[in-house]
This record gives sequence, structure tokens and C-alpha cells, in this order.
Amino acid sequence: MAQVRNKQVILSNYVTGFPTESDFNIVESTITLELPEGSNDVLIKNLYLSCDPYMRSLMSEGPARKGSLSYTPGSPIGGYGVAKVIESGHPNYKKGDIVWGFTKWEEYSLVSAAQIVTKIENSDVPLSYYTGILGMPGMTAYAGFFELGSPKKGETVFVSAASGAVGQLVGQFAKLTGCYVVGSAGTKEKVDLLKNKFGYDEAFNYKEEPDLDATLKRYFPEGIDIYFENVGGKTLDAVLSNLKVHARIPICGMISQYNLTEQEGVKNLSKLIYNRVRLQGFIVSDYYHLYPKYLEFLLPKIKEGKVVYVEDIAEGLENGPTALVGIFSGRNVGKQVVVVARE
Amino acid sequence: MAQVRNKQVILSNYVTGFPTESDFNIVESTITLELPEGSNDVLIKNLYLSCDPYMRSLMSEGPARKGSLSYTPGSPIGGYGVAKVIESGHPNYKKGDIVWGFTKWEEYSLVSAAQIVTKIENSDVPLSYYTGILGMPGMTAYAGFFELGSPKKGETVFVSAASGAVGQLVGQFAKLTGCYVVGSAGTKEKVDLLKNKFGYDEAFNYKEEPDLDATLKRYFPEGIDIYFENVGGKTLDAVLSNLKVHARIPICGMISQYNLTEQEGVKNLSKLIYNRVRLQGFIVSDYYHLYPKYLEFLLPKIKEGKVVYVEDIAEGLENGPTALVGIFSGRNVGKQVVVVARE
Repeated sequence: MAQVRNKQVILSNYVTGFPTESDFNIVESTITLELPEGSNDVLIKNLYLSCDPYMRSLMSEGPARKGSLSYTPGSPIGGYGVAKVIESGHPNYKKGDIVWGFTKWEEYSLVSAAQIVTKIENSDVPLSYYTGILGMPGMTAYAGFFELGSPKKGETVFVSAASGAVGQLVGQFAKLTGCYVVGSAGTKEKVDLLKNKFGYDEAFNYKEEPDLDATLKRYFPEGIDIYFENVGGKTLDAVLSNLKVHARIPICGMISQYNLTEQEGVKNLSKLIYNRVRLQGFIVSDYYHLYPKYLEFLLPKIKEGKVVYVEDIAEGLENGPTALVGIFSGRNVGKQVVVVARE
Repeated sequence: MAQVRNKQVILSNYVTGFPTESDFNIVESTITLELPEGSNDVLIKNLYLSCDPYMRSLMSEGPARKGSLSYTPGSPIGGYGVAKVIESGHPNYKKGDIVWGFTKWEEYSLVSAAQIVTKIENSDVPLSYYTGILGMPGMTAYAGFFELGSPKKGETVFVSAASGAVGQLVGQFAKLTGCYVVGSAGTKEKVDLLKNKFGYDEAFNYKEEPDLDATLKRYFPEGIDIYFENVGGKTLDAVLSNLKVHARIPICGMISQYNLTEQEGVKNLSKLIYNRVRLQGFIVSDYYHLYPKYLEFLLPKIKEGKVVYVEDIAEGLENGPTALVGIFSGRNVGKQVVVVARE
């Protein structure tokens, strides 16, 4: 079989501090669209790629590296994506299936079946949703808020990075549960989205709040029951001084810290004691067994318009590095997706 | 009825930084050993008083104050103690009963029944034990280790302030559970106690370890499952880099931070995420319903010598301030008790 072009996004060097576009190269390699003899892997055509904060940790050299997923200079970077099966050596998948899972930033990838989270059976929502609301970020919001947050009607919820891929859902889940929810974001446009699109009760631009402790006291005079932690650092410190007794803090990420060579110190941890607070880190892949339950919960709500989702779409793999780098300065509005191909 | 002398330990001023003996005065007031007409309170003679780290927070002015328990300059300080009932207006208690609960640092106190945790029924162990192993610190070790720590046989446990009122028990509970347990303390004498008296597998003097991260890696090459947090600050930061997946950190106190006007920053919180760590503050009084179960578990073990307890006894209320101040620099060896009277 003939070889075809396989455009790739390559890590050019290990990253220190904020990633920039020069940390990535676009190269054109070639690939034979045929599985090796006897392979039980799956050959896929990548359609939509997901830009997610955790990817920063895969770009570093040294102890922060997270096992086999970490990137190596000279090789294509990886991440979650939606893809079409070209050829399959594994009984669970066949040619033409649409799947989502962990793939590489290139036009075609050879992946193991273990990298595929699931086949996509429902196609009357945008396929790109499986990089966001119906993919890893959606499951992160669902598992973090419902499983770790244990929300009850009438409780108070604070969400940082609230207009992002995860935060916009946490706010809507909180409202569906009957909670009071406040979100923070970094631009006026995002704050407007939070209030007018996602149904947050209140929202503020953290860049315009010189005293975050005072801001939180204004929005939560009685304190916070659940803080959905996406950012870490100074925000966490201010939250620690504004918690209710038995508060819960699910931690899915600390994006404010990922690009610092030295982490900010969090000073108010002793507040956890008297308030009996549970602070719990989690990795979404531990909760993928709940995915069918999540689809059952969410798909009807998407179709009825009761849960909405905002995406920021970059067209073309060659625009991937710019899109990816942008999420670390909050340039994206909503979930950042890169379209490689539409089918 | 005649008035009698009532020696008291009075807070002379709100405390900033480390408390010193000059922050307290010994005064002699008088008291009528008679309940006011119609009172349902309890008049007690204090026998043993407990010196505990949380008492530091009660000495401060301002937002760190913990409600009604906080001390006021000019008034006697309060804390846990063992006492004999002189007269009772409450049906649960009668003259001659021995009780433990929250009392004041004075010879005689008028307390509400709600301040009494329980009547002491078993008197074939030293009464002073009800300020320690059979009192609040014992319940702290029990609830923190078993309820929040969820230990399993073969797991690895690290305890800071390990020879203190709580730590010496956590180590012994860990050994009873079949765990590997390492403790840290601040003198050679305490380290010897940990290994030779309390059965810790390993112990070290943290003051002689310039690189705590390296020390923990030496004792826990595979990482820590449970960190029983008593100290906070730099120790917590080093532990965060040495945790196993699904580690648990019950936090009952952060003694290293109590006397600082500015708390140390903890920088490694992002380690909680990938390792799915649960960090949980708790207050022992939430677990007092387990006290009968605790006695059933522990009393036989004390009598058989399978659990031991070391106390540091100060004689006389007038030596109370020195004893209390000493726990913040680690001068005590074992549980610090003040004897007011022996019966």
C-alpha cells in the first residue's frame, strides 16, 4: 500500500517555564496505512485533538514526568482526541468506528487498544464534544464534583478557571444540584459567559480583585462548602480562609503552578484542621468506569439544551501549538480544540 | 459554707509568637464550695491538667481564636483535665465521681455538664492517663489513624512529633495493625524511646537531618501510605514528595506553625493530584462517640503491657506555665501533665 503524508507536532526541546510555540515543530513524515502483520493495535485517523493543562507536565524533563505518557524531544506529542478507525487488529474495534482516547498529535496514529477509552455510539452531538464535555474534561467535572465533592442542595460552591473545559460544567452541575455557585475567570468576556451562558449565580475577574480574601468574603459571607480546585497557589490560600466546616476540595489541577520553576507556598493549611476539611487529589482515569452513567445523565440534558458547552476551535494541526500554548495564559475562551480533519 | 483558696493560672496578655512563662500569672482567688441555688452545673476539684498544642491557638487575639474556648487576659486558661466532683446539680454526676473533660487551670472549677466528656469508671490505671492515652490525645490517635488513615496490614506509616502525647500511640497502633512505621522527634532521647519503648521500626532526629526529603527516601524507598500530620510546614512539604498512590494524611495539628506570625508556605501540593492523596483535617470531639469502643480496644492492651505510655509529670499548678510553654519547644518527653492534686 502506498505511503501517505503524516503531518506531526513534534516537541523540539524539554520545556522550562511557560511553553511557547518555538517548543514545537510541525514536520511532515509519511506513514503506510496498513497494520503490521499480526498486530493487535489500531490504526486511526485523528479528527479532533484536545488541549489540556495536564499536558504541561508531560513537556518537562526530570521527576515531574508522568511515566510513559511524557513527551520526548524529536517525537510527536500526545493527548486526548477523537479519531476514526482505518484498520484494526483488535476485536473491539473495526474500520469506520469513531473512538476517543489517548492519541498523538499527527494525522494518523498507531495506538494500542488500551489507549482507546471508548467507541462513540452517539453521533447526534458534535464529535468534538468527545474531547470536552463528553470526554476527559467532562468526566473530570462529573467525578470531581459529584464523587469527591458530595454536593448537597443549598450548598455553596466556588470554581476557579470557571470558563474552562472543566469549570463551565462544574458550574452547571452545581446549579442542577441546587447549589449557589460563583466562578472566577481572567477576562470580562469570560465573566459574562459564566453569568449569562453557564448560569453561575455570580462571577468575577480575578485579575481585577487585588484582595481575593475580601472578594471571597463578599460572595460567600457564610463560607464555601465545595471548592473545585483548578488553579492552586494564591487562590487556594484565599479559599482556605473562607471555608465552612466539613468543606470539600477536589483537586483536579493547579494550572497556576505548572509553569513555575518554584511552586508558590500555600500558607493557610492549618485552616483545614478546625474546619475538618477534606482536600483530595484525583485522576480522572480512575473514574472512567462511570462513563456510561455519565452519558446517561448528560446526553439528554445536552439535547434539551439544559447543559451547554462552549468550544474554542483551532483549524488545522499546524495551528495546534499556538492553541496549546494559549491555554496557559488563558487565551482560549471555553474548551480549546484542534481540528485535524472533520472526517 | 466557708470560702477556700482557689489558686489559678491566668493569661496575662494575648500571646504573639512563642508563649513564655511571663504570659501567665499565678493568682490566689477564693471560691465557695457550694453550687448556686438551682444550678445544674457541676463543681469539681481539678486533679490532673493536660498540656496540649492546640492550646496555643486559644492564647491569640483575633481571627485565630476558636470561639468560646479562647482565653481572655485576666481570666484563668482552660484545657482538658481529670477532676473529682465536689457537688453536682446535674443528674448524670454525683459527689465523689471522677470525670474528665474541659476544665480550667485552677484548683476548683464550676463547669457545665456539657464540658464533661465522661465519668471515669475504670480506676486500675493511673488517673493521669485520662489526660493522655485514655483522654483527648488517645482518641486523637485512634480516630486519626483508624478512621481517617484507614490503615491496612503491610502499609508504610510516617509519624511526626512521634514521641508526643498522640504520636507515641499512633506508632503503637500502626505496629498492632502490621504496618511499617517510622517516627521523627527532636532529641536523641526521644528517638531512643521511639525505637526501644514504642516499637517504631525506625526513628530519626529531624534536627540532624539537613535534607528531610532524602531522609524520607531512605526510610521509605517505596513511599509513604499514611502520614500522621502533627507538625506542618517543611515536614509536610517533604512528605508530599514521598507519598504512594492513594496515600492518606490525617491532620490533627501543625505544631511547627502555631507560634509563627506568618505561616510557612507548603509548595508541593500539586503532588496530591497524581498520587490521588486524601488530606483531611479533623477535630477529635467529632469522634467522642467512639470512646466506649476505644476503651474496649485499649484497656486490655494497657493491662497486658501491649500498649505503653510515657508521661512527663509537672508537680503543682504553679509549675503549670513552665510545663505548658515547654511543649512548644519540645522540652517535654512524652505526654506533658500537670498535677494539681492527687485526690
